[in-house]
Amino acid sequence: MMRQSIETLSVATSGRTLVEITRDVAAWVEGTGIATGLLTVFCRHTSASLTIQENAAQEVRGDIVRWLDRIAPEDGGWMHDDEGPDDMPAHLKSVLTGVSLAIPVSNGRPALGTWQGIYLIEHRSRPHRREVVLHLIGE
Amino acid sequence: MMRQSIETLSVATSGRTLVEITRDVAAWVEGTGIATGLLTVFCRHTSASLTIQENAAQEVRGDIVRWLDRIAPEDGGWMHDDEGPDDMPAHLKSVLTGVSLAIPVSNGRPALGTWQGIYLIEHRSRPHRREVVLHLIGE
Amino acid sequence: MMRQSIETLSVATSGRTLVEITRDVAAWVEGTGIATGLLTVFCRHTSASLTIQENAAQEVRGDIVRWLDRIAPEDGGWMHDDEGPDDMPAHLKSVLTGVSLAIPVSNGRPALGTWQGIYLIEHRSRPHRREVVLHLIGE
Repeated sequence: MMRQSIETLSVATSGRTLVEITRDVAAWVEGTGIATGLLTVFCRHTSASLTIQENAAQEVRGDIVRWLDRIAPEDGGWMHDDEGPDDMPAHLKSVLTGVSLAIPVSNGRPALGTWQGIYLIEHRSRPHRREVVLHLIGE
Repeated sequence: MMRQSIETLSVATSGRTLVEITRDVAAWVEGTGIATGLLTVFCRHTSASLTIQENAAQEVRGDIVRWLDRIAPEDGGWMHDDEGPDDMPAHLKSVLTGVSLAIPVSNGRPALGTWQGIYLIEHRSRPHRREVVLHLIGE
Repeated sequence: MMRQSIETLSVATSGRTLVEITRDVAAWVEGTGIATGLLTVFCRHTSASLTIQENAAQEVRGDIVRWLDRIAPEDGGWMHDDEGPDDMPAHLKSVLTGVSLAIPVSNGRPALGTWQGIYLIEHRSRPHRREVVLHLIGE
């Protein structure tokens, strides 16, 4: 019978970087006992976001961070800077990458490709604690 | 018992800007009587899109619009300009920001963070009427 | 009664381009017999991605490819280039456009707007075979 589970994950970040959460998410999915369904990963912030990316080469993550800095630079002449120069760039990076992911679940696991990992991206310079809501519906 | 609701929201825009629809979406979710579930917000256009962003500081919205103009400028030398210089930039901004949002629902409300609002972004210069489909599954 | 279907689509690409998959996706949705529900389209790769865009004007697709090349250029000084100069730009374009789409289904069809088509974007220069997972829940 169709059912659902919902949970909030707390993710500690150490400033501007990608934090892999694939293992935590997969473990939670497995724990629900739902074999086939739809997983939603949702970031409850406007200066951190989510992406699915290469989980093998470490340099990919560094390149992503530097690319985001280039696309939404601190010296962009932004009107909004209430919390410092990394404030508005963090919002823009979050708009670009997005805060929600929809991932089918099959055989009790997120149907990710071989090289895909789920990442929370911290866009602020200082460490933060971020909330990620996990929702799974299926049977 | 698991059930679903679907509805189309009509959103009036006044040219290139962000229109907050959080209240309308939350009111509809509450009206369905579904306490826990998955909300999907879907924009049926290719020159308008959706984002979740800061709902407090007004300047954030202006900065987002100016940043999108910079990333997809009208003088970008685009091949496609059937509907004027803001035509192709509108499509590109829509590709960048996306047209669908997946948001878990908990206690009868979208599980947004304190500072998160749901926005329709109008990318065309002239006012438009935009259709946003809301879908909710849960119980 | 609420039920779900899941399927993997194989999409052949001919290098850096947009491949429309709307027809294949809609045919699969119709075949499930589910009239109202939520469709998820998920790309199992980190150098290809998904977008919903204009299905009428052919030039739009060319402009999108050129715009992505400009935003994530091959000569960007990336650290990661294990598979050649188009490797890291492909990852960045995939971060920007995203790998999952959530689309409500109504009357047995994806509730797309008149001008919306579903596209797989190949970001690598060489042809590839890509896996796209389709999931539908509803009744």
